[in-house]
Amino acid sequence: MTITRRVSWNDCDPSGLIRYQAAFDWFVDAEVEFLRSRGMQHMFERMPRVAARSEYRIPLRYDDLVEIDVSIAEIGRSSVTYDYVARVGGRDAVTASVTCVHVSDGRAASIPDDVRTALQAG
Amino acid sequence: MTITRRVSWNDCDPSGLIRYQAAFDWFVDAEVEFLRSRGMQHMFERMPRVAARSEYRIPLRYDDLVEIDVSIAEIGRSSVTYDYVARVGGRDAVTASVTCVHVSDGRAASIPDDVRTALQAG
Amino acid sequence: MTITRRVSWNDCDPSGLIRYQAAFDWFVDAEVEFLRSRGMQHMFERMPRVAARSEYRIPLRYDDLVEIDVSIAEIGRSSVTYDYVARVGGRDAVTASVTCVHVSDGRAASIPDDVRTALQAG
Amino acid sequence: MTITRRVSWNDCDPSGLIRYQAAFDWFVDAEVEFLRSRGMQHMFERMPRVAARSEYRIPLRYDDLVEIDVSIAEIGRSSVTYDYVARVGGRDAVTASVTCVHVSDGRAASIPDDVRTALQAG
Repeated sequence: MTITRRVSWNDCDPSGLIRYQAAFDWFVDAEVEFLRSRGMQHMFERMPRVAARSEYRIPLRYDDLVEIDVSIAEIGRSSVTYDYVARVGGRDAVTASVTCVHVSDGRAASIPDDVRTALQAG
Repeated sequence: MTITRRVSWNDCDPSGLIRYQAAFDWFVDAEVEFLRSRGMQHMFERMPRVAARSEYRIPLRYDDLVEIDVSIAEIGRSSVTYDYVARVGGRDAVTASVTCVHVSDGRAASIPDDVRTALQAG
Repeated sequence: MTITRRVSWNDCDPSGLIRYQAAFDWFVDAEVEFLRSRGMQHMFERMPRVAARSEYRIPLRYDDLVEIDVSIAEIGRSSVTYDYVARVGGRDAVTASVTCVHVSDGRAASIPDDVRTALQAG
Repeated sequence: MTITRRVSWNDCDPSGLIRYQAAFDWFVDAEVEFLRSRGMQHMFERMPRVAARSEYRIPLRYDDLVEIDVSIAEIGRSSVTYDYVARVGGRDAVTASVTCVHVSDGRAASIPDDVRTALQAG
């Protein structure tokens, strides 16, 4: 799934480029849209993030039009890892992975079957 | 009451100056410290902000050492208005006011007497 | 001009509602789109914000679909004041005004005629 | 080197815990203080971040007092990797690494000797 957004003035720092953390803000929104596309947006709050990594390959600056791909890299018993790529002009600018864990009653818990099925769909 | 902080790299935009919204982030932290100084930090969450205004008089930039004054401008039945001044080198850089309303069961409610007394102290 | 966006998870605090400052982030993006619609997006950086005010009338929460109206309230010699309304379900949730000043060589300067004409266009 | 800060209301989301990205905001400030302690704060802007990773081990919430350790994991020809640990109550809550590259004239460049010496100093 791909979402498109502009690099906001709010995302940029005195270097004229994005604050590197801003990409994680975009990925939160991309994950929400990914879940929504499968009718699972209510799961966002139940699957907090436990690990993240990102690499910055091409500078991104104010007003760039960025395409953000979100896909599932892996689904475990209780965790999901998303892969993200933010592209500008067709080139990979930021690549990242974020791992979420399904939490129930304050602990890691198996991902319910209907959620798993929806996440794995198409 | 005065708190001191540095202008963070995260607070600044490609102009090299602060994003104007960043000052409101500082004022949130200043309000928390003000309430803490009166033993009332638990009230922060119960008094959401309903109005704000700010004026920017002197540019603030990355790594500036800023002094932030917080004081109470007015206490009404259910509302408190705070005044803020962010100073750099002894000069007023940002002035602002933020009004909060005490909310109980989802509605504006009288500020409890012990809170009022603590806020008005010294 | 009206833009639409969802309240991001990133915009919300432990109350479940938006951090009040988040609305100013949206208004920055709305101002950029307003300028773009008149071919003036390059002016954004040259017109920093010098004053802002906002009022919060209806709580906004995660995933709300918000319509943001941006219009010009007033154009002076060197300043522009924008009015903003963020609406949810057709009702005004946040109203705000933000004043920008045209800066050239570090000082307030007359707004160029072509910019003024573009901003005033219907 | 260790800096201490409170988890700000601004850092937290509707889960009541920090937005995971907030930790990177803290690490930016910690890196600045680390550089300052070695007289190298002017280098911050010249060494943008090219990779980051973080793991979240213990939930952090509003008003928690957090100690943030920053140290150098590795210095290469043109890059520096920092390790970060955010601790609450003596326990590791967030661990992270961030890699920066020294940039001169838009390209990766050897870290100047005086900078390298200062960074490596005890």
